[in-house]
Amino acid sequence: MSGSNVLVRSCQVLQLPDGGPGTVLPDHDLHLADGRIAAIVPTGTLPVPPDVRIVDGHGLLAMPGLTNGHSHLPMVLMRGAAEDVGIEEWFNDLIWPMEMNLTPDRVHAGARLAIAEMLLGGVTAVADHYFATDRIAEAAVELGIRANLAPTFFSSDGPDGRRAAVAAAVAVRDAGSPLLTASLGPHATYTVDEDDLRWFADAAVAEGLPIHIHTSETIEQTRASQAKLGVTPIEVLARTGVLAAGALIAHGTGIVAEDLPVLAEHRDRVGVASCPKGYFKVAMQTMTPVRGLLGHGIRVGVGTDGAASGNTLDVLEQTRLLALSQKQQEHDPGFLTTSEALRLATRGGASLAPFGTTGSLDEGAAADVVLIDLSGPHCQPVHDPLATLLYSARASDVRTVIVDGEVVVEDRRLVRGDLAEIVRDAAAVAPELLARRPGEAVQHYAP
Amino acid sequence: MSGSNVLVRSCQVLQLPDGGPGTVLPDHDLHLADGRIAAIVPTGTLPVPPDVRIVDGHGLLAMPGLTNGHSHLPMVLMRGAAEDVGIEEWFNDLIWPMEMNLTPDRVHAGARLAIAEMLLGGVTAVADHYFATDRIAEAAVELGIRANLAPTFFSSDGPDGRRAAVAAAVAVRDAGSPLLTASLGPHATYTVDEDDLRWFADAAVAEGLPIHIHTSETIEQTRASQAKLGVTPIEVLARTGVLAAGALIAHGTGIVAEDLPVLAEHRDRVGVASCPKGYFKVAMQTMTPVRGLLGHGIRVGVGTDGAASGNTLDVLEQTRLLALSQKQQEHDPGFLTTSEALRLATRGGASLAPFGTTGSLDEGAAADVVLIDLSGPHCQPVHDPLATLLYSARASDVRTVIVDGEVVVEDRRLVRGDLAEIVRDAAAVAPELLARRPGEAVQHYAP
Repeated sequence: MSGSNVLVRSCQVLQLPDGGPGTVLPDHDLHLADGRIAAIVPTGTLPVPPDVRIVDGHGLLAMPGLTNGHSHLPMVLMRGAAEDVGIEEWFNDLIWPMEMNLTPDRVHAGARLAIAEMLLGGVTAVADHYFATDRIAEAAVELGIRANLAPTFFSSDGPDGRRAAVAAAVAVRDAGSPLLTASLGPHATYTVDEDDLRWFADAAVAEGLPIHIHTSETIEQTRASQAKLGVTPIEVLARTGVLAAGALIAHGTGIVAEDLPVLAEHRDRVGVASCPKGYFKVAMQTMTPVRGLLGHGIRVGVGTDGAASGNTLDVLEQTRLLALSQKQQEHDPGFLTTSEALRLATRGGASLAPFGTTGSLDEGAAADVVLIDLSGPHCQPVHDPLATLLYSARASDVRTVIVDGEVVVEDRRLVRGDLAEIVRDAAAVAPELLARRPGEAVQHYAP
Repeated sequence: MSGSNVLVRSCQVLQLPDGGPGTVLPDHDLHLADGRIAAIVPTGTLPVPPDVRIVDGHGLLAMPGLTNGHSHLPMVLMRGAAEDVGIEEWFNDLIWPMEMNLTPDRVHAGARLAIAEMLLGGVTAVADHYFATDRIAEAAVELGIRANLAPTFFSSDGPDGRRAAVAAAVAVRDAGSPLLTASLGPHATYTVDEDDLRWFADAAVAEGLPIHIHTSETIEQTRASQAKLGVTPIEVLARTGVLAAGALIAHGTGIVAEDLPVLAEHRDRVGVASCPKGYFKVAMQTMTPVRGLLGHGIRVGVGTDGAASGNTLDVLEQTRLLALSQKQQEHDPGFLTTSEALRLATRGGASLAPFGTTGSLDEGAAADVVLIDLSGPHCQPVHDPLATLLYSARASDVRTVIVDGEVVVEDRRLVRGDLAEIVRDAAAVAPELLARRPGEAVQHYAP
């Protein structure tokens, strides 16, 4: 990839600057060359480049690709299999026992389905945390999505497991695809001990890889850590060197006020992915403190978590839920405006890991472009395209998706894979995941 | 209508009983005759009736039509034009000034777009509260949706306005369509005085029509009423006879514990429609007390409110948000299970007004049936069709919609209207709504 030459003609172009309100350019062309946005110009003002593939953007809005800041892709296989339960039952009675049934082939089948869902919904990059990352990498390259993959490690895996997890991350990084990057994946502060966290922080520095880790997922985890260790989970990341190494923190709904300055010390390398749908489902009483994080200059992105908790990998839906829940949490209808929310779903997520994209439509930026159709009756009339995108549009309104300059979704169809086959393969292995053997689980949740 | 004969073949059938978990019948046929469900039988066990239209349900889930328990359909024209503001600014600076620009033709154009959006999203009945109800009725009959229409009245309209509002409701009721029913529509306890509420309660009893009214929309309204009058807005409805006349109460996020026994006294004729998306948007701190209402045997349904607050008329989305927000509010992931939430979206909404449907797929029930396609990558695999419907499916997964025995959406296309023309007409008049003249508004919000 990265060699092609695409001209998207006659679309509107969403521009979300680093700060301030977004704007929409009317009737522009985007020229994409060698995986970059070479030009954004008023329609017809650029001579048609030679050997260019023309994509008709008439009536469509070009937006930066959405970024999924935290996921567990193969968990689509368990979508809808753990409903109406709290977090302990979810982990201990359902998900972790089911994950005993994972095999590399099942991971691969799940990852393909997950990536198909994401691409068709305008998601062009994902930070994933899971097992058998080589097989997830294979699916990402096949279907054409940017993926930053973190091989999951629990302290119960032992020293061999540590080395294997780092080797798996290095293998993804060195696989030679511009779409693939890697992080180290110690699971969480409650499943990985401080010695191991220190070891991973050192390994991260040595390998030049950041860390992707679940931390302060709930306020109860924070309270439990304070009771047991006298410090918050964020302070554990600080004292073990994880923050200094660079970290993508998943969830952080239990991040408390005293954590903010700690995170802010590492704001050039630390960010938080918020995945609100699942927080509602397990009846959490706090959401990620997005206002406090942004106020301290800490990066924030939007994630979907695995579909076993959030049921979809729909970043547009999660972004809408982020805006809704943050307004409520802050008692402020003016917080997380349409521009701010959409910025977190694009630039925000892109800043969480070294994906190789800025999540923006700027000349020189990576050519990750989504064309979305706002002509449906649920979107019309369009008084404000940003409001339409955030509050009315659906993932199914995505028409065309370009990643690294390559068209990977065209007129709502996956270009590089047979969707029917992908769905069939995943549906065939999914029932095998649900069998549970008494007493067996990959971990036990007791933070 | 009501004369046709349809056989839906080889679908799964969602059954949501009055209480307890829903179930799915595999591979059944539905025979619809004269606007009723004549039979639900295992596929192939019924001889094909003569002169029957066959609808292929293979691979689809038949579910009861969704009911929109509270809306203002023509407000789709203002969709996305009032974002990131609180309720006072929303009413006083934006929506009520814009509504000075309403005309019957604009109402009609908006209603057609709104009904198109709803039918395509599986909504088969709507309780609407607005102006120019004759033109909304026209659109409902044209496109084929059940509509219970309440002509909006403010006390500022005076005695002539009262009589006109009742006459408009009677005209809808007497229009001769099985799809149309009517309610009386005094706007709210803060825009209609107690004398007028008493007058409407008497008129409701005299005409045999129920009342549809905004009440306790926010907890601040409840507190203001207690401070001014010494009683809650619900108690105002009780002492003016509105509850005894039968009432569909919109929102009720400010319903307090002492209101519940008052409502329960009229539980055979009083219900509440909850429309959570807009509550989040204006940063409300309380949601409709669904658990308390259901615990007192009071009817509850799901609504969308107008699209100027909720941005879509997507009942599936609002139902999902209802489940998410109720789990959070009750600190209980087990509250509002998938079955309970979907029941509120169907039977619950249907019980709020005399639509002529039970919102259920039972033999003898009204033939309001939705066929939805759960084969998309965002829905697969399906371990539990109820979870898939509530947490993964999108309105765009709706394939076929049958109202009163007539197919009104077929393979995702509107049968009785030209969608492109409907969208074009609405988009053409929408900008005219947005002009505001200083100092002019239909009302002033100061509860």
